[in-house]
Amino acid sequence: MSPRSVNSMSAPQDSPELQQLYRDFEQELLVPLWNEIDDLMPFEPSGRTQAHVWKWDTLLRLAAKAGELVPVGRGGERRAIALANPGLGGHPFATPSLWAAIQYLMPGEDAPEHRHTQHAFRFIVEGSGVWTIVGDDPIPMNRGDFLPQAGWNWHAHNNHSDKPMAWIDGLDIPFQWVNEVTFFEYGRPEIPEAERGTPQLCRSERLWAYPGLRPLSVTTVAPGSPLLAFKWEYTDRALKEQLALEKEGFGGTIEPGHAGIRYTNPATGGDVLPTIRTEFHRIVRGAETAPKQETGGSVYQVFDGSGTVTIGDHTWSVSRGDFFVVPSWQLFSAKSEAGTTDSDNGSLDLFRFTDAPIYEKLQLNHTTHPGK
Amino acid sequence: MSPRSVNSMSAPQDSPELQQLYRDFEQELLVPLWNEIDDLMPFEPSGRTQAHVWKWDTLLRLAAKAGELVPVGRGGERRAIALANPGLGGHPFATPSLWAAIQYLMPGEDAPEHRHTQHAFRFIVEGSGVWTIVGDDPIPMNRGDFLPQAGWNWHAHNNHSDKPMAWIDGLDIPFQWVNEVTFFEYGRPEIPEAERGTPQLCRSERLWAYPGLRPLSVTTVAPGSPLLAFKWEYTDRALKEQLALEKEGFGGTIEPGHAGIRYTNPATGGDVLPTIRTEFHRIVRGAETAPKQETGGSVYQVFDGSGTVTIGDHTWSVSRGDFFVVPSWQLFSAKSEAGTTDSDNGSLDLFRFTDAPIYEKLQLNHTTHPGK
Amino acid sequence: MSPRSVNSMSAPQDSPELQQLYRDFEQELLVPLWNEIDDLMPFEPSGRTQAHVWKWDTLLRLAAKAGELVPVGRGGERRAIALANPGLGGHPFATPSLWAAIQYLMPGEDAPEHRHTQHAFRFIVEGSGVWTIVGDDPIPMNRGDFLPQAGWNWHAHNNHSDKPMAWIDGLDIPFQWVNEVTFFEYGRPEIPEAERGTPQLCRSERLWAYPGLRPLSVTTVAPGSPLLAFKWEYTDRALKEQLALEKEGFGGTIEPGHAGIRYTNPATGGDVLPTIRTEFHRIVRGAETAPKQETGGSVYQVFDGSGTVTIGDHTWSVSRGDFFVVPSWQLFSAKSEAGTTDSDNGSLDLFRFTDAPIYEKLQLNHTTHPGK
Amino acid sequence: MSPRSVNSMSAPQDSPELQQLYRDFEQELLVPLWNEIDDLMPFEPSGRTQAHVWKWDTLLRLAAKAGELVPVGRGGERRAIALANPGLGGHPFATPSLWAAIQYLMPGEDAPEHRHTQHAFRFIVEGSGVWTIVGDDPIPMNRGDFLPQAGWNWHAHNNHSDKPMAWIDGLDIPFQWVNEVTFFEYGRPEIPEAERGTPQLCRSERLWAYPGLRPLSVTTVAPGSPLLAFKWEYTDRALKEQLALEKEGFGGTIEPGHAGIRYTNPATGGDVLPTIRTEFHRIVRGAETAPKQETGGSVYQVFDGSGTVTIGDHTWSVSRGDFFVVPSWQLFSAKSEAGTTDSDNGSLDLFRFTDAPIYEKLQLNHTTHPGK
Repeated sequence: MSPRSVNSMSAPQDSPELQQLYRDFEQELLVPLWNEIDDLMPFEPSGRTQAHVWKWDTLLRLAAKAGELVPVGRGGERRAIALANPGLGGHPFATPSLWAAIQYLMPGEDAPEHRHTQHAFRFIVEGSGVWTIVGDDPIPMNRGDFLPQAGWNWHAHNNHSDKPMAWIDGLDIPFQWVNEVTFFEYGRPEIPEAERGTPQLCRSERLWAYPGLRPLSVTTVAPGSPLLAFKWEYTDRALKEQLALEKEGFGGTIEPGHAGIRYTNPATGGDVLPTIRTEFHRIVRGAETAPKQETGGSVYQVFDGSGTVTIGDHTWSVSRGDFFVVPSWQLFSAKSEAGTTDSDNGSLDLFRFTDAPIYEKLQLNHTTHPGK
Repeated sequence: MSPRSVNSMSAPQDSPELQQLYRDFEQELLVPLWNEIDDLMPFEPSGRTQAHVWKWDTLLRLAAKAGELVPVGRGGERRAIALANPGLGGHPFATPSLWAAIQYLMPGEDAPEHRHTQHAFRFIVEGSGVWTIVGDDPIPMNRGDFLPQAGWNWHAHNNHSDKPMAWIDGLDIPFQWVNEVTFFEYGRPEIPEAERGTPQLCRSERLWAYPGLRPLSVTTVAPGSPLLAFKWEYTDRALKEQLALEKEGFGGTIEPGHAGIRYTNPATGGDVLPTIRTEFHRIVRGAETAPKQETGGSVYQVFDGSGTVTIGDHTWSVSRGDFFVVPSWQLFSAKSEAGTTDSDNGSLDLFRFTDAPIYEKLQLNHTTHPGK
Repeated sequence: MSPRSVNSMSAPQDSPELQQLYRDFEQELLVPLWNEIDDLMPFEPSGRTQAHVWKWDTLLRLAAKAGELVPVGRGGERRAIALANPGLGGHPFATPSLWAAIQYLMPGEDAPEHRHTQHAFRFIVEGSGVWTIVGDDPIPMNRGDFLPQAGWNWHAHNNHSDKPMAWIDGLDIPFQWVNEVTFFEYGRPEIPEAERGTPQLCRSERLWAYPGLRPLSVTTVAPGSPLLAFKWEYTDRALKEQLALEKEGFGGTIEPGHAGIRYTNPATGGDVLPTIRTEFHRIVRGAETAPKQETGGSVYQVFDGSGTVTIGDHTWSVSRGDFFVVPSWQLFSAKSEAGTTDSDNGSLDLFRFTDAPIYEKLQLNHTTHPGK
Repeated sequence: MSPRSVNSMSAPQDSPELQQLYRDFEQELLVPLWNEIDDLMPFEPSGRTQAHVWKWDTLLRLAAKAGELVPVGRGGERRAIALANPGLGGHPFATPSLWAAIQYLMPGEDAPEHRHTQHAFRFIVEGSGVWTIVGDDPIPMNRGDFLPQAGWNWHAHNNHSDKPMAWIDGLDIPFQWVNEVTFFEYGRPEIPEAERGTPQLCRSERLWAYPGLRPLSVTTVAPGSPLLAFKWEYTDRALKEQLALEKEGFGGTIEPGHAGIRYTNPATGGDVLPTIRTEFHRIVRGAETAPKQETGGSVYQVFDGSGTVTIGDHTWSVSRGDFFVVPSWQLFSAKSEAGTTDSDNGSLDLFRFTDAPIYEKLQLNHTTHPGK
């Protein structure tokens, strides 16, 4: 592939007239392509987004401090602290389209009800005691649980326990912000007592959390998953069985020692949210994933274990709770580090979310160079 | 709506010439519309298929007799005995498109491996001890389990127990026969020992039987459900929860006292088989379903309880194991009979299968008169 | 592939008890699979439908005779005479799912307004002077024109000329009849004067007959094509250009000397009717199509030229207006006969319709043995 | 709707500790939601993109000047000058996702062959003499023609005439740039003589430019329209017929005096490009369109006539060749000004392109507030 510096070959010769033309362009709100093409139309995705790691203990410490200093309530709405990718100009954007934040709720606190067109999910890496109320359905949150929540659903959070709790929020805030398609509404000022229940199964699970069974009473189709909680028990069991099937010689894993599931909308089999794909990967002790690249960015959180992740040319050590971003088209692999954890299996467990559904629907998803 | 007898108004006047014309038509393999329109183009679906009930004890008795007299093996392939709708000219067709049969396997017997384009399922109303081997995956069969199996999968059955076992086969044999699109192949003459396993979970369940979780290792899309067994445990729990939600004031049922689920392909959220829809309905003691009609025919089997079913103008008493057919467009309702069963809950449990996916995909599905 | 006569190997031994069992089956409306499997589940589609040719002059002569003897009007509705495949028991079915008929209207006659769920089209091999009124839109009918008309549209025909006119009706009457999903309604007894227009462009063409342009005023999606007339001018030009592109070395044809188009719904790009695919093929003088087979049956009408068609083991000579049926899975090829026509180009022009959309939507479409 | 200033109600109390926390956030690449929510999650789309008008004579004058001073060729690739929305920080983005530029080619000049994943189109408001070569198919460009060209097609331009020519390029460059999913490749350095043809019909038109007819030789499905040229003749005729049908009392227009078509992919009936929708609107002399709003931004070019456009609170006078941008969610209406043009019909003709397909596929398209 030719270097774009070839560009200079056809560059216009400088002159007072040319300088005047450029001033006229600027005056008239015009920009010539020939000075921008290297940035706008690179040979391959080579963006501003940078690979980066955020450490869980730092996040948790600062979130706890915010718990002391910053009230939660109408207006600010949430005590959420977002990852700001170092390449994205200080915006609270983990990738150009994805928001990733730690949210923190003190004992007894409520995060007030609101709704917005942004698609959202919660993922819990540790703690318990908070219920997210979607519509009027209180959903428990415990380690390993995943709670998708499509845009425009009313929701609030209630910490029913005597301890603070932190969890992860993922949304498509940057995508909807850039494209200016976002709506927001305040809900009721207080969560009614009747909705402050603390069931271990929310109602959406009682209707939908059965393999392959669909309630005949539900005839409408909403944009996102009608199942609002994906319990850790099932995720963990699915991964274990994949690894067991591999050992028995029947495949089941993505590659040797690497199990993975996608969270799906049980009404469609597709992604749980229109703009966000979510997955869970388990890499057994000593295994390493084959380097992969794809268009679109990913955010990972280490759920358990420790290991190393290689993104482009850099390698980081990561452990429980740490976040990292894999920018579009950068080669990524992960390795579970033998002997460094004291959990039973020593596997590196990774929760992942990406904006892949956007590019799949627009036929812009590539995992190999389109010219090859 | 005018009676079609109005037809006679425009009937051609009889004459020797007309008679000659009719003879010429016949000679040239032609048929005039004007003599056939009443039959071919009725005002509403008014077909040949008849509502009918087949009693379980009769089916079971005759199947057991066949167990004594008829060997199973290559050629005949299966000891299956099909419902022959009284309106369909002696063909083994429950409805114009659906096959419903009782299959019977003696202790230690094998039904040999074959495959065919016909889509199929098994449903078990009583007994156990048989494993259906799909590909090389042995699938246990127990009361209440549902095993869909899309066309062209190799499959065999093995009775691993010391008792005979009967179950239900549903297929789209008539549809594929009428339209002449069916293929068939013999498989291996013997089931290998390695595939005569008796696991309680088949491998497809280990990969797929989790609510909303999809294994990332499976990247191909097949015509039917990759989940090959839907255990009774989940079906029963889903129905109980719907009825509990109804009692708690949160809906969840189709109508008061009437719970229902559809078996779906977890990879698509759609029907488990391209041509066949399968559902399970529970009607609590004393409840009655609102009369409904739709294009396409249904076959029901009573899984538990007893009650009455009304199809068009007739009402039948039915109990455990009985089959009945609801022809296209006939009004259907079912009622659970209070106090007549000694099971715990007294509900009438109905397994149902229909050819609805065919008409939905072809936009011929109607539940109200299209002119209304 | 093993002969199914292997069947006899596992046939049950005859005995009085077995005979009694068979009588019991019959009495209880049951049919054992083992006596039916050869017919129901053949190794390949090997149906009852037969390849057959109907000659145009015979059809036209008998239709003209019907014009004299049989009035058209309410009740009989249409002076239509249908092909009855010799393998389908005297039913007016060209294939198991398709109806093909010649319709004949005398000068000044009306065929009264009605509607039905059966999907329909008209194709005109010769003549002119009739307008089909769909809704209130009068559509001219001339040689080579194709008029699709999805189910449940009101329609009538009016011969505005002083000559009789014949054309072809294709419908899915057999499919909807077998499956008992058909509705029918009488329309107004008279066609209003205002709708007896004789425009050369119907209104649906004025809205939709532009390549790739969709009127923004139409926001609803109907089951079939909103474009109700496909003029011969475009079909002919498209075929000529394909053949010209082939000559220029740019492909464009299906195979050398064989051009073809599919009529599509401009709102979806898919088939014009939910159950029926329609195509037009041109085979240049001396060319021959490669033998092809597929699941589902086809009806062809020779629009122009003459040649031979080979279906399975038989070859027929055909010329303008002749019909022939290609049953499911039978190998078909056509050859344009050099020097036998006096038209300009000597090509064999074939109009074709099939039930392929049914099998595509149900994933039962095969063009090679699924086991290969 | 509550003012978001309510925000201040829950703002944290300032303190040295809080200031330290904010410094820590910044240090650790974190951003708290509560200080950003007003901007990130507004009650309604209220973005940075501004309504703005660019005048055609200014564009043309500066483009001609660039024709003198700036060579076209490898590296700079195109003499294209893009609209830079005043709200988007100097980037050459007409809206957050769309690029709109005037491209200018001198007599005898070539713009060299390249390809990129960005979806593109050309629209010609005046002039002729350039052929765009897509693959090896030379496509003429004349006033009113529209040439869509999905990503990753090789393409070049050749001015075969003795006059300069300008036209409009629309692409999704900003969308693919923000999301970092863009690929680019240089093509051959010279356009071969064989591809410097000057046909009046390109080959894609000869294959595809027939209403509702699809060539059977094309069996692959590409992301964008296989028809690469939409001639003005058809667009103009379609609009005229809609207005004629309206006059005859049969509807056909979007609203009184307002006709419109969408350019569609004839293989799918959907948008011509995966990310860009293109339409043509005609507003007759004196008519005014009802104000409309929708999520996603639009770029319009006045093709003919003159009038006023109202976007949000501002009204602009526009005439032939002028561009204007309608940002997401701003109310838009257009009015054809009576008597101000000297063209035959005096209608205001508007070419429009938007990123609507992105939001439709992601279920983020709204034309009314989702809470209403």
